[in-house]
Amino acid sequence: MAKKAIILFSGGLDSTTCLAIAKSQKYDCYALSFSYGQKHSSELDAAKRIAKSSNVKAHKIIDLDLASFGGSALTDDSIDVPIVSENSTLETNIPITYVPARNTIFFSIALAWAEVLEADVIIAGVNAVDYSGYPDCRPEYIKAFQAMADLATKAGIEGKGVKLETPLIDLSKVEIIRKGYSLGVNYAETVSCYKADEKGAACGECDSCIIRKDAFEKAIKKDPTIYV
Amino acid sequence: MAKKAIILFSGGLDSTTCLAIAKSQKYDCYALSFSYGQKHSSELDAAKRIAKSSNVKAHKIIDLDLASFGGSALTDDSIDVPIVSENSTLETNIPITYVPARNTIFFSIALAWAEVLEADVIIAGVNAVDYSGYPDCRPEYIKAFQAMADLATKAGIEGKGVKLETPLIDLSKVEIIRKGYSLGVNYAETVSCYKADEKGAACGECDSCIIRKDAFEKAIKKDPTIYV
Repeated sequence: MAKKAIILFSGGLDSTTCLAIAKSQKYDCYALSFSYGQKHSSELDAAKRIAKSSNVKAHKIIDLDLASFGGSALTDDSIDVPIVSENSTLETNIPITYVPARNTIFFSIALAWAEVLEADVIIAGVNAVDYSGYPDCRPEYIKAFQAMADLATKAGIEGKGVKLETPLIDLSKVEIIRKGYSLGVNYAETVSCYKADEKGAACGECDSCIIRKDAFEKAIKKDPTIYV
Repeated sequence: MAKKAIILFSGGLDSTTCLAIAKSQKYDCYALSFSYGQKHSSELDAAKRIAKSSNVKAHKIIDLDLASFGGSALTDDSIDVPIVSENSTLETNIPITYVPARNTIFFSIALAWAEVLEADVIIAGVNAVDYSGYPDCRPEYIKAFQAMADLATKAGIEGKGVKLETPLIDLSKVEIIRKGYSLGVNYAETVSCYKADEKGAACGECDSCIIRKDAFEKAIKKDPTIYV
């Protein structure tokens, strides 16, 4: 029986690269996305298209109204997504786009699915650049989640618990893109922008766009993103 | 400013006792319930009534379709809730009523609300009897969740993170009931049954009913539950 991987799958550059990595490792792939009140829902449309074209075994989209808690520019209409000028450096503090406990919630729901599927791994595309101050993208956090998960589930306490893997955590955005290209990823399908329009065109101005543009430049690859 | 407590609030005996404990400790109380595809939704009606009569600051009910994962008798229509005869002993293994990663998911969502509210504590009514084989009700699991939470959030890494409290964890059901009575809890309002009917009447036969009946007998208190 093939090994099973659940991929936390936003339809963005990182998670699409993770899906390609899982496929190259011969996992049966199960994509997990969330409709959590994010403003950039064109991301979800991208996720659906890519999951389909990648022949995943299943793609589950969980509705979860994190917007009802507020507190983040990504879900709270009263907070603007910040625009970073191309010449400025990104903030080193925790950005306003941080969604409280988002990864913890996503990983926890993946853990539930993993137990039912008897999945071997959960793959999440967190990495050092996307981190940019998000507490729940750091290696020490990932390690603590794993320790908790090993105690949380029937499979875990039987020693057959799922492993949370973060293959991009030590890679720069440039290295991620190079990795993806080597695996045949079509980045034109992916959406990174926090404020992409309904057709998936990117603003070119938010944190996520700036990081992406810069990385494609450094990777000496043509950025396939369509900007408004 | 009063301290803030989020109470994981099912409307059952344990969480209602937790709410009474939080109120007795002068917390501003925020009740958090989940509509997660459980068969016994009369529990949620009880939660609404009790939250209202207890004058909580807010009561949030989060919709989350855990039933779509299947795997538990509490959410999966293809698995019957087991009936335990009064003379048999409860299973010591993990019961079929276990919902994969349920507490992890609930605690994670509470963590998100806690960060937005700047809450001091999350109070959960897990205890040694309700444990009955559930991995995510054990003290070592609670400790691991706390360690993860301290690394997961902005507040946590600033040393102002929320504390996960489980005031019932070492208490027997009898002790919980005595505690609740001493705080004026009206247990007639609470629903414990996994299969309660639409009016909240209990089956008297499931694990949860057996534990509850037995505890009221031992506490030498009249069980106010209405059985079908």
